[in-house]
Amino acid sequence: MPDILHRIGIKSASTQEAYAALNTIDGLAGWWTSDTQGQTEIGGELRFRFGASGGFDMKVLELDPGKRVLWEVIDGPAEWIGTRISFDLKQEDDYAIVLFKHMGWKEPVEFMHHCSTKWGSFLMSLKALIETGKGQPHPHDVLIDNWK
Amino acid sequence: MPDILHRIGIKSASTQEAYAALNTIDGLAGWWTSDTQGQTEIGGELRFRFGASGGFDMKVLELDPGKRVLWEVIDGPAEWIGTRISFDLKQEDDYAIVLFKHMGWKEPVEFMHHCSTKWGSFLMSLKALIETGKGQPHPHDVLIDNWK
Repeated sequence: MPDILHRIGIKSASTQEAYAALNTIDGLAGWWTSDTQGQTEIGGELRFRFGASGGFDMKVLELDPGKRVLWEVIDGPAEWIGTRISFDLKQEDDYAIVLFKHMGWKEPVEFMHHCSTKWGSFLMSLKALIETGKGQPHPHDVLIDNWK
Repeated sequence: MPDILHRIGIKSASTQEAYAALNTIDGLAGWWTSDTQGQTEIGGELRFRFGASGGFDMKVLELDPGKRVLWEVIDGPAEWIGTRISFDLKQEDDYAIVLFKHMGWKEPVEFMHHCSTKWGSFLMSLKALIETGKGQPHPHDVLIDNWK
């Protein structure tokens, strides 16, 4: 099954800030969508909304502080349901490295191409949030195509 | 074998400008790397260089004007050699859509994660080149991590 893969490096002395941006409502709202709600502990459900475009509900499956976050998509577009999203963190010199995977897509449909580019753009928003204090979460996100 | 997938939409009345940006030395130098040389016809070889980071040599395998460009990597990093890169173009309303695939990676190594994010960033540079007249090719490219 095809996966979406990304790697960003955040200028940061440790992976702590990146982990917080993946594991707190304020952090997630600072880079992905300002309309983020829910519970961030294991078993908790997170609701990410993008206005008229709808959104995604995730269940938190794994948390390893400073190292890893794993979600499962429990509601959203049909192509997303049952897929899993992981963020693996490690420190390399002055950079907190984030290895991202969105796993379990059934087919490499055109929507998957869109989501790949859009994830890359949102991960750059995560990098900006930590490096500059300001990300570009929805509704201020970078538009990549006619599907936004 | 895992692929890198992306989709961008360029505000443009046709796919003609996007095709030119993929099939002329000036066009390629305007969004990917300013150090681009070679022949853009079928069977031609293109040399893309990124300063001290090295670069890639591609052979042009297919050209369908306004619709498709396909390259094969003939020299560069070991993970890239033998992989293929396609750009499929189509018009949707006011947008020229680019569907991108970098196919034939043997393994989803960490370098592939980096290249996925970096390709997304360069495709946004292609979009900017056509929409604003100015892309962000190397050496003015957006840096995504400690591998640049």
